[in-house]
Amino acid sequence: MRRALMLAANGPATGVNPRVGCVILSGPNTTSGPNTASGPNSANAEPIVLAEGWHRGSGTPHAEVDALSNLVARLGPGAARGATAVVTLEPCNHTGRTGPCAEALIAAGIARVVYAVADPGSHSSGGAETLRAAGITVQGGLLARESTDFLGDWLVAARLGRPFVTVKWAASLDGRAAARDGSSQWITGGPARLDVHRRRGAADAIVVGTGTVLADDPSLTARDAAGDLLPAQPIPVVVGRRATPDAAAVRRHPQPALFYATDDLAAVLADLATRGIRSAFVEGGPTLASAFVAAGLVDEYLVYLAPTLLGGPRLALGDIGVDTISGQRRLTIDHLERLGDDVLIVARPRIVATTSTTKGA
Amino acid sequence: MRRALMLAANGPATGVNPRVGCVILSGPNTTSGPNTASGPNSANAEPIVLAEGWHRGSGTPHAEVDALSNLVARLGPGAARGATAVVTLEPCNHTGRTGPCAEALIAAGIARVVYAVADPGSHSSGGAETLRAAGITVQGGLLARESTDFLGDWLVAARLGRPFVTVKWAASLDGRAAARDGSSQWITGGPARLDVHRRRGAADAIVVGTGTVLADDPSLTARDAAGDLLPAQPIPVVVGRRATPDAAAVRRHPQPALFYATDDLAAVLADLATRGIRSAFVEGGPTLASAFVAAGLVDEYLVYLAPTLLGGPRLALGDIGVDTISGQRRLTIDHLERLGDDVLIVARPRIVATTSTTKGA
Repeated sequence: MRRALMLAANGPATGVNPRVGCVILSGPNTTSGPNTASGPNSANAEPIVLAEGWHRGSGTPHAEVDALSNLVARLGPGAARGATAVVTLEPCNHTGRTGPCAEALIAAGIARVVYAVADPGSHSSGGAETLRAAGITVQGGLLARESTDFLGDWLVAARLGRPFVTVKWAASLDGRAAARDGSSQWITGGPARLDVHRRRGAADAIVVGTGTVLADDPSLTARDAAGDLLPAQPIPVVVGRRATPDAAAVRRHPQPALFYATDDLAAVLADLATRGIRSAFVEGGPTLASAFVAAGLVDEYLVYLAPTLLGGPRLALGDIGVDTISGQRRLTIDHLERLGDDVLIVARPRIVATTSTTKGA
Repeated sequence: MRRALMLAANGPATGVNPRVGCVILSGPNTTSGPNTASGPNSANAEPIVLAEGWHRGSGTPHAEVDALSNLVARLGPGAARGATAVVTLEPCNHTGRTGPCAEALIAAGIARVVYAVADPGSHSSGGAETLRAAGITVQGGLLARESTDFLGDWLVAARLGRPFVTVKWAASLDGRAAARDGSSQWITGGPARLDVHRRRGAADAIVVGTGTVLADDPSLTARDAAGDLLPAQPIPVVVGRRATPDAAAVRRHPQPALFYATDDLAAVLADLATRGIRSAFVEGGPTLASAFVAAGLVDEYLVYLAPTLLGGPRLALGDIGVDTISGQRRLTIDHLERLGDDVLIVARPRIVATTSTTKGA
């Protein structure tokens, strides 16, 4: 499975499809499985790698089919009979641009399938059942944690039908994004800003509100410490009913910007998903950030806190529809880090029971 | 000097006077110093401890005088002649309730004085000069860092003529101290609250505004996890023009409360200093906290951040008189810690040059 994960990493990190790797091993490696006697090796021998494959992105063969093709090319038709397929994601059960992998594995005579992570897709799941119904031994969950981490936002996107949403803000220790007059350069220091750019570069899209475009005219590019563009650039997405000026920096972004003249964030995300965007980095303004929080559309928070105090009205997060303490949006801190003078807190939403109360303050 | 610091720790941690320890060693331990020949041991011998002493609080003998008394009681008059006094704080030069230590050391015939930290007091400093003028070899700065840390808030209090001021608040990750309706129990969890109580117990005074007294009726006691009172309790101090109700919990505090019907925080602190209060723990309400920050009267910040979002108008810190980013109150983070689910950031004010600006966001 580790080899399969390494193969999976050959695939593209962005796009609608997950990165999946597949290794075909000799024999089902089990004395109780079917077809044992017909495998190319004896059941008790150490399995050897017959073929490998991985998915290269939407429209290309899935990892299993790629591996089966490589196997046939190498050893001829029928070589998969009685073999084991080790794959990082449960083989799909549906016909998209390619046929279902479960059927391909059955047709090839595979005796055993080991996978890491169950397919969360509403259309594509069920592969394991189909395989079992065909008499194939199926085992899920091997290296599930590593594989889940590896699939990361794709899994969330597949589960939710929308991109994985990260909301980032930088604030003073008292929660302000700017001073009273709107000035904010710089609250956080160089290391924190560099970290933001690195994360921008790893996202499929960067989302801002029109308010931020009009106020700050940000370039929304991912840059290195020297100010040069990083190799990967997120697609800039501007949300809001106000028009973006022709001269706005976002219009000169290396990736053509997407403009959504709407307040319906769920609709924006759904449309982004259809475009193969599976991670959205929301950076743009307290109003937009608050709207994402209020709509319950945030999967991860990146809060960069600078050791400074500003006071005043310009909050990093505005109203999020919480009226009383029982309505608070509890989070779990995943990661805490010092970046230069600043602190980065990475958190995600948490479902909690009501907290117990003890004696008064 | 380490022994002297250990002796100093015998003294009371609170009160107007610092904790000081003194060790008297045989000989000046220097071949070039005066009186070497007259010491009880030869100059090149390993010095031995002749006597020890420490200060037991206001009105009692200072550490040097205590050690000299112990020496005379043990070895008789004249035993200090040619000896070395090792003391954690520069011997004082003024007559308060006790005479100046510098004069006592000179009169006893001490040949050499080694101290750790210079006396910051405007009335009491100058002891080293007085000693040198009398022909005594004086060396300052030995174990200065450890001794400075040990003297901690007393040094600040002596330098500034007011208590060391800690401002604490607990807030959500977006900087709110309560939900819209004022409910706030609980934003932070048990470990964070316990940490607050421990720090309350280490402070001389706990300061709140009348707004907090009227809104929350806090007991302002330092309690353990079971809710029982800790051995040391801070003196409760209520600041503000509104009256504190007769039935207020603060009136049942083990320490009689002090009430200041004023907005002049510097005057409050000056008065607290005259009462021997050298550390003030400001816990009470965004208005009071903001006033301390705006007045530049904060030496240390304790910010307990809970991983939760509240939005809305109830900020942990209000206006602090900053209009533009160049006026921001920069801090330095001394300590970052996870306390249960929460994060504690300990910071102190920083004097910085204007930050450089680089490329736009």
